[in-house]
Amino acid sequence: MKLQVTQENLTRALTNVSRVASTRGTLPILANVLLKTVDNRLSIAATNLDIAITHYIGSKVSEEGSITVPARLMQDFVSSLPSGVIDLKLDDYKLHISTEKYQSVINGVSAEDYPVMPAITDGKSWKISAKILKTSLQQVVMAASNDEARPVLTGVYLHSHNGELFMVATDSYRLAEKKLIKTKEDIKLLIPATALNDLLRILGEYEGDVEVVHDEQQVLFKVGDIELVTRLIEGNYPDYRKLIPSTFASSAKLKRADLANITKVSSLFARESAGSVTIHLDDKSSQVSIRSVASQLGENTSAATAEITGDGTITLNSRYILDALHALNGDEVTFSFNGKLEPTVLADPKAEDYLHVIMPLKS
Amino acid sequence: MKLQVTQENLTRALTNVSRVASTRGTLPILANVLLKTVDNRLSIAATNLDIAITHYIGSKVSEEGSITVPARLMQDFVSSLPSGVIDLKLDDYKLHISTEKYQSVINGVSAEDYPVMPAITDGKSWKISAKILKTSLQQVVMAASNDEARPVLTGVYLHSHNGELFMVATDSYRLAEKKLIKTKEDIKLLIPATALNDLLRILGEYEGDVEVVHDEQQVLFKVGDIELVTRLIEGNYPDYRKLIPSTFASSAKLKRADLANITKVSSLFARESAGSVTIHLDDKSSQVSIRSVASQLGENTSAATAEITGDGTITLNSRYILDALHALNGDEVTFSFNGKLEPTVLADPKAEDYLHVIMPLKS
Repeated sequence: MKLQVTQENLTRALTNVSRVASTRGTLPILANVLLKTVDNRLSIAATNLDIAITHYIGSKVSEEGSITVPARLMQDFVSSLPSGVIDLKLDDYKLHISTEKYQSVINGVSAEDYPVMPAITDGKSWKISAKILKTSLQQVVMAASNDEARPVLTGVYLHSHNGELFMVATDSYRLAEKKLIKTKEDIKLLIPATALNDLLRILGEYEGDVEVVHDEQQVLFKVGDIELVTRLIEGNYPDYRKLIPSTFASSAKLKRADLANITKVSSLFARESAGSVTIHLDDKSSQVSIRSVASQLGENTSAATAEITGDGTITLNSRYILDALHALNGDEVTFSFNGKLEPTVLADPKAEDYLHVIMPLKS
Repeated sequence: MKLQVTQENLTRALTNVSRVASTRGTLPILANVLLKTVDNRLSIAATNLDIAITHYIGSKVSEEGSITVPARLMQDFVSSLPSGVIDLKLDDYKLHISTEKYQSVINGVSAEDYPVMPAITDGKSWKISAKILKTSLQQVVMAASNDEARPVLTGVYLHSHNGELFMVATDSYRLAEKKLIKTKEDIKLLIPATALNDLLRILGEYEGDVEVVHDEQQVLFKVGDIELVTRLIEGNYPDYRKLIPSTFASSAKLKRADLANITKVSSLFARESAGSVTIHLDDKSSQVSIRSVASQLGENTSAATAEITGDGTITLNSRYILDALHALNGDEVTFSFNGKLEPTVLADPKAEDYLHVIMPLKS
């Protein structure tokens, strides 16, 4: 292997790919990145066996070849080099990296020892705007569960329903649902949230379309020169639609920033009660007030002006309210529920494509 | 106690003071801040028994009084409030904090239970520009030791010598010395580096003079409305001047950024050898080269152009070189030593008031 690349391209590729390389696994080689010449490009790839990321960069290849090298060292080293041309030359599993003033040798491990990267040979393919995909992921992914005991809930369910594509995630305490685009495909993909967090970082400021390819076991996202493949989660996603109420006994419409501020202040007094705050909608005074009590430290009541329909009181986890308000984009928010045992729905009164549901706490 | 303050002033004071309040000590009350009316001001204070910080802010006092409240909660709460006037009212050890939309009660502990704040009744007093003090601290403090086994080296030695004020710190592996101002005082203060790190944060962008008051046991820094008192460290500071060489067999003069870059790149390969890198000055090629070897990972050689006087090779800890280069301010740096067993001196060729000495490693 002998080739030239630019420091800028190689750094960008290593940054995108190294994230899935891990030193914590049982297979030491998974801490490496795989470098391989592919025609006149260099492919930089890494996998943790669940997710694989491959980034192709332009390269002047004089000799074909492949090698794996430690991801962290390679990334730290290349990103410290000055911008400009870098020469890579492989000599008996030693990768020589040189610029005018810097000469390094990194000891590699044969590419043949690297696990086979997952690939999709025959799958369904469609496209979606990177911008829509990114916004939707930012609004939904945080609601997925971290608890491996219920694998289905650690996924984000990307699926078609009545000719439209939906993305939903829930950890059973809260749920976020986004309507993305119209589609004619029949789509039912349960994608690990961790993979989608990686995808979010890769999407960055990319402005074109993302190609999505999937078969029964895997899904591939092509973002320009970068490919992310992940295994899908097996299992049936809960029939969540019936859990979302559509009529409400109590509802408030107020500035999103106001609700965020009073929730944040109240949450400071809710640390010892796992974030529990009590929200009261008062029709007469046109106020939403939030109350929290810390037995040792003290107590807090904060209020904001709102348009209220129907008095009501509900106890929620303040962190979930803040997550929901962060995921919403508009100036205003509606906050609606049916009595203190039913879920609360937060939405943007001007955007019907997104809603966030929070289950109540016992008060 | 009943008074009004602005949210901006109270937040600033709590930020400066809370840092020394700690929940980790054996005395729970040391996690609190002490609020006390002093004429028409509110004093906000905290101590860890070694260091005490007091910040005075303007206040409309209707009833005198004092109380202590949990520092972290108070700071988080007040900094979350909107800017404007805050009412504070004490009612039976409960501090009521209110604005138009926010009402809180924080449970306090009597100010009488709070340790007596250290104070200097009769001491020597002099002034120094905050800007000079800040720059000097930034150049010296990092060289002090963290090792409590040798308390003297955990201090910064602020002392007069031949009519000039010097600041020096050493952990016995490296030493930083700065000449600050001319002085007629006889000064010998061994000040804990931790207190000076707090002082650095308090100095911030302050542009006036700092008043320094000290007796045998303590030193006080007055920075505008903020006072920091710290105990002094007992013991004699080592006679460090004789350890600093003034003539050199090998010396290089080069761009500070160049030396920083090649050191940083080399340090990546020096992780398993505790940062050890070998620097070679080559008169003939007018180059400084740095080499590091990681037995498993690989090796690196980086070079930069320099004016060289006398070939030489020395092995140093790359982290200390980077700290020294960070503390120096000029465009260029001189890097000088006498053989591989003697200390290396880094300095700015255009500023004689600062030098940084690094002891060699065995190579």
